[in-house]
Amino acid sequence: MSKLSTIRHFLHQNQAKIAIFSDPVTINYLTGFYCDPHERQLFLFVYEDREPLLFVPALEVARASAQVDFPVFGYVDSENPWQKIKEGLPSIDSDFVYAEFNHLNVTKFQGLQSVFSGQFKNLTPTIETMRLIKSQDEIDKMLVAGKWADVAVQIGFDHIKKGNTETDIIAQIEFELKKQGVSHMSFETMVLTGNNAANPHGIPGTNPVEDNALLLFDLGVLYNGYTSDMTRTVAVGQPNQFQKDIYNLCLEAQLTAQEFIKPGVTASEVDAAARQVIEKAGYGEYFNHRLGHGLGMDVHEFPSIMAGNDLVIQEGMCFSVEPGIYIPGKVGVRIEDCGYVTKSGFEVFTKTPKELQYFSLD
Amino acid sequence: MSKLSTIRHFLHQNQAKIAIFSDPVTINYLTGFYCDPHERQLFLFVYEDREPLLFVPALEVARASAQVDFPVFGYVDSENPWQKIKEGLPSIDSDFVYAEFNHLNVTKFQGLQSVFSGQFKNLTPTIETMRLIKSQDEIDKMLVAGKWADVAVQIGFDHIKKGNTETDIIAQIEFELKKQGVSHMSFETMVLTGNNAANPHGIPGTNPVEDNALLLFDLGVLYNGYTSDMTRTVAVGQPNQFQKDIYNLCLEAQLTAQEFIKPGVTASEVDAAARQVIEKAGYGEYFNHRLGHGLGMDVHEFPSIMAGNDLVIQEGMCFSVEPGIYIPGKVGVRIEDCGYVTKSGFEVFTKTPKELQYFSLD
Repeated sequence: MSKLSTIRHFLHQNQAKIAIFSDPVTINYLTGFYCDPHERQLFLFVYEDREPLLFVPALEVARASAQVDFPVFGYVDSENPWQKIKEGLPSIDSDFVYAEFNHLNVTKFQGLQSVFSGQFKNLTPTIETMRLIKSQDEIDKMLVAGKWADVAVQIGFDHIKKGNTETDIIAQIEFELKKQGVSHMSFETMVLTGNNAANPHGIPGTNPVEDNALLLFDLGVLYNGYTSDMTRTVAVGQPNQFQKDIYNLCLEAQLTAQEFIKPGVTASEVDAAARQVIEKAGYGEYFNHRLGHGLGMDVHEFPSIMAGNDLVIQEGMCFSVEPGIYIPGKVGVRIEDCGYVTKSGFEVFTKTPKELQYFSLD
Repeated sequence: MSKLSTIRHFLHQNQAKIAIFSDPVTINYLTGFYCDPHERQLFLFVYEDREPLLFVPALEVARASAQVDFPVFGYVDSENPWQKIKEGLPSIDSDFVYAEFNHLNVTKFQGLQSVFSGQFKNLTPTIETMRLIKSQDEIDKMLVAGKWADVAVQIGFDHIKKGNTETDIIAQIEFELKKQGVSHMSFETMVLTGNNAANPHGIPGTNPVEDNALLLFDLGVLYNGYTSDMTRTVAVGQPNQFQKDIYNLCLEAQLTAQEFIKPGVTASEVDAAARQVIEKAGYGEYFNHRLGHGLGMDVHEFPSIMAGNDLVIQEGMCFSVEPGIYIPGKVGVRIEDCGYVTKSGFEVFTKTPKELQYFSLD
């Protein structure tokens, strides 16, 4: 069943005639057309019993029409988009109108309510569930995105040099990727040295790479519509024994969770598998975030791998496994791979080695 | 009056006790603290008659507390944020609750409605109006962001070389800026050669810079919280006479609009000033977007300079003047400066010359 057919089937089952999509990434997922409308309006109208309609800013009509096989209509900046939608849509009578509540802002919501009289219901859980299980085609794309993350972190390793700052290394990674055709990172590249890595949300700056310390890379790319995300922490010079011990503890937690993942376990059990390793060693309080997040066309999507989430893991789910231990002033470590659930286990998208690697500033 | 005092004054005048901010950029504008919460929750609660409260993801509590002089509280991923907000806020009884409808999604809106019983009203127009008139301090920051845009486009000019692609030039611009400490572009850098520039939303790719054609740069940076945005179209080799004529027509329109701007005229009149030049020459249909957009902490904000907008231009407003003429298969030109309205006119943030500049691929 095609993705749009799945939506139509959902509408049919729920006695609704129309679903309205507003998230550009969802629209890309469903149609293959992507556009960031900024403050303008972009909607995909999917009907239970007639062909869909795409509403875009006027500047995007030509490109959209070339990419989808159903009608596209647009509006120019000086027109009222809600009036234009009202005139451009077939009149339907639907008790329920489904819309993406996690994306739609209140102003757009009120605009749509001026066009549709039915009761609005939330479409977000439906689309999140659809996107939760990746097809083989999607996994293949994510493997490619993962390979580029491996390339990116290797570029970073190659620029661990005396005097280079966190920002210098980031600039070099993104420059070399762009030259190779990878234009978009999936989030802001993080390169954090020494104590800056001990802040789980540290911000890269003009700190030169510290000697005899750990250095953390957290990065990913967006490629063919799919994201990757990985973290590696490496040794520069000779970190002290405590730092190495914390590294190895984090790695043990990461590998333990990866080994544990298979269809049938729950998200909270996966989180616990890693957390117990760190708690048992007495550092539980320093692992102060969830173990992982789903990813796909967005770098953060369902499922959330955390305490309290009883979601049962299934084949085709894709998510990160990223324990971290952050002891301010002493050490910061995070190790992350994203992967996909197979019939019996978990395969990662990123293959950069995880035993502690050593680099010299000389 | 401080910005937060202005909000409190607004609440007092509108018989409301609380305003809830959810847009990270607005929160930065009001408090100086910036954080992108991704799918997590971030709210600033401003009370009419007591001190504000900031609600952030747990990971951000320390950084936020260091930056604001009022209480900060947080939640971890496994907690219910709405419950946490309910417990953490003083109980108030307000008939009206103001929130940013242009930012708040329906799910968050419903979450807040589970905490506050008053009638929700839209705060977006109020904050947009506050942000519309820039202070001297803001204009000073935007002048610096403008200087960096000039630096950026000059780097681009320096890399107009045989064999360099659109993407190569973008990579070089962003690399050299990052090395100089400018880490964030304010939007995706555009370098478009020949026919690709004839699409107002063309996407840069691996096209080598064409000889005897026009080349378009559209770029800006984010610096100290403020954005810049400029477009220059230059000649590579010898474009044909028609292309040069269209360039000069676009420039005439751009300069005419800039000259026209002063306090008291309306946004639609500014748009018309440029548009009439292009229409009179018979190319009106190829200038198919508004003349400009406001900018400040966001690269697109109020005011919109377009037909139908009767907003009266005032001293301190900042916006772009960017006519474009796009004739598919023949020529694409856009020329853009952003500037601020003075007591008697309009001063631009970007100073790169606008008479047609010539570059050689040899």
